Formats: sequence, C-alpha cells, structure tokens
Amino acid sequence: MLAVELIRKKRDGAALADAEIRGFLAGVTDGSIPDYQVSAMLMAVYFRGLDDRELATWADAMVRSGDVIDLSGIRRGKVDKHSTGGVGDKISIPLAPAVAACGVAVPMVSGRGLGHTGGTLDKLTAIPGFRVDLSVEQFRAQVDALGVCLIGQTERIAPADRRLYALRDVTATVESLPLIASSIMSKKLAEGIDGLVIDCKVGRGAFMKTIADARALCVLLRAIGERAGVRVTCVLTDMGAPIGRTVGNALEIRESIEVLRGGGPADTRELTCVLGGEMLVLGGAARDAAEGRARIERALADGSALEVFRKVVAAQGGDPRVCDAPGSVLPRARHRDELALPAGQITAIDSEALGIAAVLLGAGRRTTDDVIAPAAGLVIDAYLGEQIEPGAPPQIILCHDLDPGDPRVAEARTRVSQAFTIAPPGSTPHVPPHAQPHTMAPTASPGSRILEVLR
Amino acid sequence: MLAVELIRKKRDGAALADAEIRGFLAGVTDGSIPDYQVSAMLMAVYFRGLDDRELATWADAMVRSGDVIDLSGIRRGKVDKHSTGGVGDKISIPLAPAVAACGVAVPMVSGRGLGHTGGTLDKLTAIPGFRVDLSVEQFRAQVDALGVCLIGQTERIAPADRRLYALRDVTATVESLPLIASSIMSKKLAEGIDGLVIDCKVGRGAFMKTIADARALCVLLRAIGERAGVRVTCVLTDMGAPIGRTVGNALEIRESIEVLRGGGPADTRELTCVLGGEMLVLGGAARDAAEGRARIERALADGSALEVFRKVVAAQGGDPRVCDAPGSVLPRARHRDELALPAGQITAIDSEALGIAAVLLGAGRRTTDDVIAPAAGLVIDAYLGEQIEPGAPPQIILCHDLDPGDPRVAEARTRVSQAFTIAPPGSTPHVPPHAQPHTMAPTASPGSRILEVLR
Repeated sequence: MLAVELIRKKRDGAALADAEIRGFLAGVTDGSIPDYQVSAMLMAVYFRGLDDRELATWADAMVRSGDVIDLSGIRRGKVDKHSTGGVGDKISIPLAPAVAACGVAVPMVSGRGLGHTGGTLDKLTAIPGFRVDLSVEQFRAQVDALGVCLIGQTERIAPADRRLYALRDVTATVESLPLIASSIMSKKLAEGIDGLVIDCKVGRGAFMKTIADARALCVLLRAIGERAGVRVTCVLTDMGAPIGRTVGNALEIRESIEVLRGGGPADTRELTCVLGGEMLVLGGAARDAAEGRARIERALADGSALEVFRKVVAAQGGDPRVCDAPGSVLPRARHRDELALPAGQITAIDSEALGIAAVLLGAGRRTTDDVIAPAAGLVIDAYLGEQIEPGAPPQIILCHDLDPGDPRVAEARTRVSQAFTIAPPGSTPHVPPHAQPHTMAPTASPGSRILEVLR
Repeated sequence: MLAVELIRKKRDGAALADAEIRGFLAGVTDGSIPDYQVSAMLMAVYFRGLDDRELATWADAMVRSGDVIDLSGIRRGKVDKHSTGGVGDKISIPLAPAVAACGVAVPMVSGRGLGHTGGTLDKLTAIPGFRVDLSVEQFRAQVDALGVCLIGQTERIAPADRRLYALRDVTATVESLPLIASSIMSKKLAEGIDGLVIDCKVGRGAFMKTIADARALCVLLRAIGERAGVRVTCVLTDMGAPIGRTVGNALEIRESIEVLRGGGPADTRELTCVLGGEMLVLGGAARDAAEGRARIERALADGSALEVFRKVVAAQGGDPRVCDAPGSVLPRARHRDELALPAGQITAIDSEALGIAAVLLGAGRRTTDDVIAPAAGLVIDAYLGEQIEPGAPPQIILCHDLDPGDPRVAEARTRVSQAFTIAPPGSTPHVPPHAQPHTMAPTASPGSRILEVLR
C-alpha cells in the first residue's frame, strides 16, 4: 500500500478502505509518510471529503495514534464540553466545577490559545501557582476525588492530530469539515468520556460563518461520536459579540469567579447553565435539559460550584483565595487605558477585531513562541443593540503592561474603535446584512446566544 | 505574499496574479517554499486548473527558473520535436539528422527513460563512446556546424520543473493537463527554438488515453507556445502497439539506422517523415506538410540524413562505423530467447506490458538508480491485425544478459505472452472495446499511426 496510491484514490473520489485509512494515519504518526504526501492527501480530502464510514475510521485511527485515558474505574457519568472557539469564551471555567458539583465527572483536556481566541489553559495559569501539566495518574485520581480536573493536552494524546494540524495550518487545508470534525473528536475521545457537549460557535468571529456550516459540522461530530459509543449533543451559539464583559486571561478568571459566585454577565451565565444542563443529561444526572439547567443554576447560586472550583484550584497548586478575593490574588495590569465609543446605537460588534486587540495588548500569542501577559486584555461594557448616550462614561478599558508609547497600544485602540459599528443618534439604524447573518435573537447582555440544540 | 495564502486562493478557484505565480515558482526554485506547501498547491491546481493567462505565466516562470539557451546567432530555423512517450519510440534518432539534412536546425535536449518507456539519451549512449553531456557552448557550436546536436537536460534547464516533477510523481498530481503542459513546454522553450512539433501519443500504452484528452493537452501546449512566440504543431499518433519492431536501446539504434538507410519498419518511417515534414514547415524549409514529408523521404533515400547522423556520432564521441556496420559496433545480448505466439489473429497489443517486459530484461530503469543493459530488449515481428499461422516461426526475441534462471526472464516471458490478445483461428475476432478506443485505421506495419494534426 503506497501512500501515492492512497492519495490518487482519494483524489479520484473513491472511498478509502478502513485498512488504508489506518495505514495512512499510522504513517502520519510514525513519520514514515513524508510531509509532502500528507499535505497532498489533506488537499485531496479537502476537495473529495470523507464518507461517514471513512470519517469514523479516520477519527478512530487518530485517537488510537496515542494514549486513551482509561476512566472506566470512575463510576459516575463522564462528560466533557468542547467549544469551537470564541473571543471571551471562558465558559469551561465556571462550567466544569458546576457540572461536577451536580454529580457528573468532567475529565477536561484543553488546549492553549493561538491567534485571536484564547485558550482555557492560558486563563487557568493566570491564577498564581495553577498547574496544568499533571500526569495521567494524577488526572485520573483528581477526577475520581473532585469530579473534575483541567489539564493540557499531552504529547501522547492524538499525536496524529498534532502533525496533521500543523500541516493543515500552513497548507490551506484547515477549512474542511471532516478534517475539523476528526481533529476535535480525536482529542476528546482520548479522554475516556461517555458523553460530549459541543459548543459550536456561529458567526463573523467564529470558525463556522453560517448556521448551515455549523449544522453540517455537528452532523459529522455526532456521527463520529455515535460510532465510538459516545453521545454527542451540539449547541449552536451566537458569536455576534464577544462572550461576557472581559477578554484576557486574568480578567476572564475574574468573570468566571463572578459566575461561580452566582453573578456575572447574563450571556456567560446562560451559556454555563445551558451547556451544563446538557452535560447533566448526557451524564445521567438530569432527565431533560430544563432540569439540568435548573440544577446548574442552583449549584451556582448555593455556592457548591464555587466550592468544587476552590478544591480544584488548591489541588492543582493554585491559590484558592482567588475564589474569595480575586482582585488581590490575580495579577493586575500596569496600565488601564479608557476608550469611549461615539454616541448612537451599536448595530454590530466584530469579535475577531476585539480578539486581535487583546492579543496586541499581550493577552494572546501571534506565534507559538510568544509569552502571554496574564493581566492584559479588554473590559467591554457595551452590548449589541445598546444606545450610547452622548457624554456617557468610557465603555472600554484596555489593560496592559506595555509602555504607553508602544505602537501596539495605539493599534489596539484603533482595532477596538473599528470593532463597533454605531448608528449615529437620530438615524434609522441600518444593520448591515453581514453583521448578524444568523442571529435569531438580539445577543450579548439582553437576549439569548443559544441558536439551536442538536441532541 | 504567504505561500499558504496562494494555496488558499487557488484552492478556492480564484486565478492567481502573474506576480503571485512568479513568486510561488521562485520559491519552488530557491527552495524557500517547503515541499508540503508545493504539493498542496499542486493538488489544488489538479482540482482547479490554471486559466490560459495563468498557464502561460506558470510555464514562463518555469523557463526563467533556469538558463535559456541563446541560439539567436544561428540564422536557420530552429525546430525541435517532443514526444509524450511511447514504447519503442526511437523517432528522434532518425528524425533529427533528417530534418537537419533538409536545412532546419534541431537543437534537441532529451531526457532519460523511467518506467515502461525508454529515453532517447539511453538509446544514444548504447553507441560506444557517444556523449550526451556537452556544454551549452559545445551544443551551440555543433547545432551551428551540423544543424543538430542531441544532449541531456542539464541541472540548469528549468530547475523548477525538476522539483515539481519529483513531487508530482509521489503525490498523485502527475495527471493534470496544465501541469503536464507547463512541464513539457518549460524544458523545450529553454532550448531557444522558434518552432516545436509535439508527437502526442494516444491510447492504452500512452499517457493520454483518449483523443479528447490528447486534444485538450495540445490546446494547452499550443497556447503556451503562442504566448512565448514559438509555433507549435501537434500530431496525435496511435499507441495501440509499440513503435516499429524493436524495444530496447541498442536494438532501437539499429532500427533507427535502418530508417536512415532508407529502410526500416513502415510505421517508424511514417512517423519520421510526417513529424519531420511538420518540422520543415515550422522551420521555413517547406511550404506545406506534403512537401516537407517528401523532402524528408528524399533525405532518407539519398543518404544525406545518414551522412548528418554519421557526423553527429563522430562529433559526440561515438563510433561512426555504427552507421555502416551496426551489428559489429553495437553491444550484443548474451541471450536471445525466442517466443512463439499462438495461432490466430492479433486483435490487441498491450504496449505497456511489452515496455515492462523490456525493463525486466534490463532495457530500462524501475528506479533512477538502476543501471541499464544497453543490449537488452525485445524484437517483435508481429503487428496488430496479423494472422498467425499454426506452426509459424517464433515472432518475439527476448534479448538479455541475465542468467537463464533469473526470475525476471520468466516474468518478462509472461508479460510478453499476455501483451497479445489473439482470436483463435476460425473464430470471429472480437476486438474488445478498450483495445483501440481511438484508432481510426489499422495500425503497426499496415496502415497509419497518424490520427490527427493540429497546426
């Protein structure tokens, strides 16, 4: 079985046999198939796709390219959540302890951020001392004891995906639904879970630009899960604006703790409760989504979710006082520059531009070598549809440790200003057709981000 | 201009700007674009194609990736021929001296053989002493003095093609008409010619399986030529059987000399005269193809073509006595095994199988490291449509230097036997539909191989 023959077969639109897929991905994993053949195959898959059987085998071969964590000794339901990525998406942080507080285990393996969206790991390590590099044994023990552990992806989880992803990024083969779906699922299926909730972001600032694309991706994710015996629920959510009021690592931890204390922005709370409710259903701790959601709301209100988070922080080496006095434990930015929006109605928010502004301030990485400034980021007190009155106090704070004259500060200010489309007072706001192609309800603080649930 | 952006643009079906194509191919040439991005681009081009303007720029950038031979000091018309490759195709050897004898210069840069078809260089070097590694200056001087020089491709001719071809071979991106067309033309346009005749082989044993594919390729070749100011005539010829009666290097030299002496198999002669006639038209030495063909026939009959060849052999270090006594100059095989075909009518010949048999006997390379046995090959005294009588003398001779017990000999015999489809005597011959999908007239010895000429 020559790699070139497999490429030709896929190029010509034929379905690859299971043994061919496993052989190809074994060659990807052990390095015996060179990069140029892997990238040619990726481009052929981009054009020809994978059918359901091929996709399930492809994903399974990627899972088996590395270690699969065995959590069969843990008797509770084991459910994780995966988000396709959005600016300000800190949901995992309040969500995981809340779900664990309701009796469902959350073995969560997360990634670092790259580009305009942040990563859960970067947010957690903004808590002084917090460690995400636990061993599999420590991971298993903590999931058993506390019902939740949050760690980083190891070299041994889905190494085939690691190589494929690096190549896709530089060969314009990222935007392929079967490649996206198998990449997501290969890492999650390696966690030893029996249920998975996908938060599939839709809109301008998201990977999936339209509801149709998002639905198509979810169909593939669910098909892969079904063949692997893992139930998958997909929640399509709106990315017409950043999630919550903060973008940046320490800032987002602070917002997460507000949610865990029963407060926080409405959209951050809603996403936590809806996604958590679905996880409880999959984990057998709620009969339906409404009951699940109500249980999560209770766990946030009665302090039991915060209590789990406190134990997690302590168990993973962090300072648990962050739960009570985040302002005195979390790093603070040296500079807090204000920015006032012009008067009028906010008719669109470009999340990606805000994400890029936060990266410029130091909150994220442009390349894998960049060092993150944990305190950097944006506080955004403005929601989609809001009327800004003339002379209102500044709505945006840019937090950073850069010199005031650093050109990145000026560029970030420009990005932030340009991110808001504002109809002047007295005009009839014209919401451009591209602003919210998919939104079913006004989003951000008032209204809901939940577009659709595919169970 | 990032390579990944250019790949994405082509992947999405957009036309690349001229500067983008030149930038990409500059990166291919200097190695700054890694293999995995080149192969992803090749696969994207496979699926999306190149429009006329892109193709002309792509080919021109490939030409300019290396040296272009300047033959402007030579006042005669300068015309070359390129064949897309066929088993037993030795036409260049009688053709080039015959055309030169008629007053048109032939600056011919050829390749070595790989796979089931041979290469002109390998055939020429079967003549003891014959050198094909002349310098550009020697090449120019000999074209000026004798009207013809036959050399090998240097490292400096179209180096971009060298890299692209090596990658296409291992990434299933060979079979792309724009990539084939630009590869052919990049090497020929670097020769400093003003006219080119393409012998485009069609059929089962050829690269182009159908007349429609061949026509489509020829349209692209002519479009590239037109933009470069080089007139291109395409002759579509039948590959329903090997060309002439010999396959193998020294054997084909012998057949070529028979043609140069006014003899040789009918099809080898016909191809030489038709292709040569078209070259004379492009070189301004004949008003039309009929006149050109008649002039070539005369040059073969009156010994003037042989005289040019004799001088070329001597000038390039070979033993010119090969023209008079080829049997005593050319290497002879240690073994000549006979094979008789069963009685009946030959309804199909699989040229590729015969080519593979010749390679097995040592006449060609399976990998670029293989060493050729110059005397090895096949003598085939059987033509398509021929009636084989019961008890007729053996039609095939397998020439080789292998030990009689070498398994390659047995495999070659099997391949040869299977290459002939023979309807038993008394049956109504059923010519299978795939045997000659394109043939307009019976081929091989009786009838013509010329299918179509696109001027």
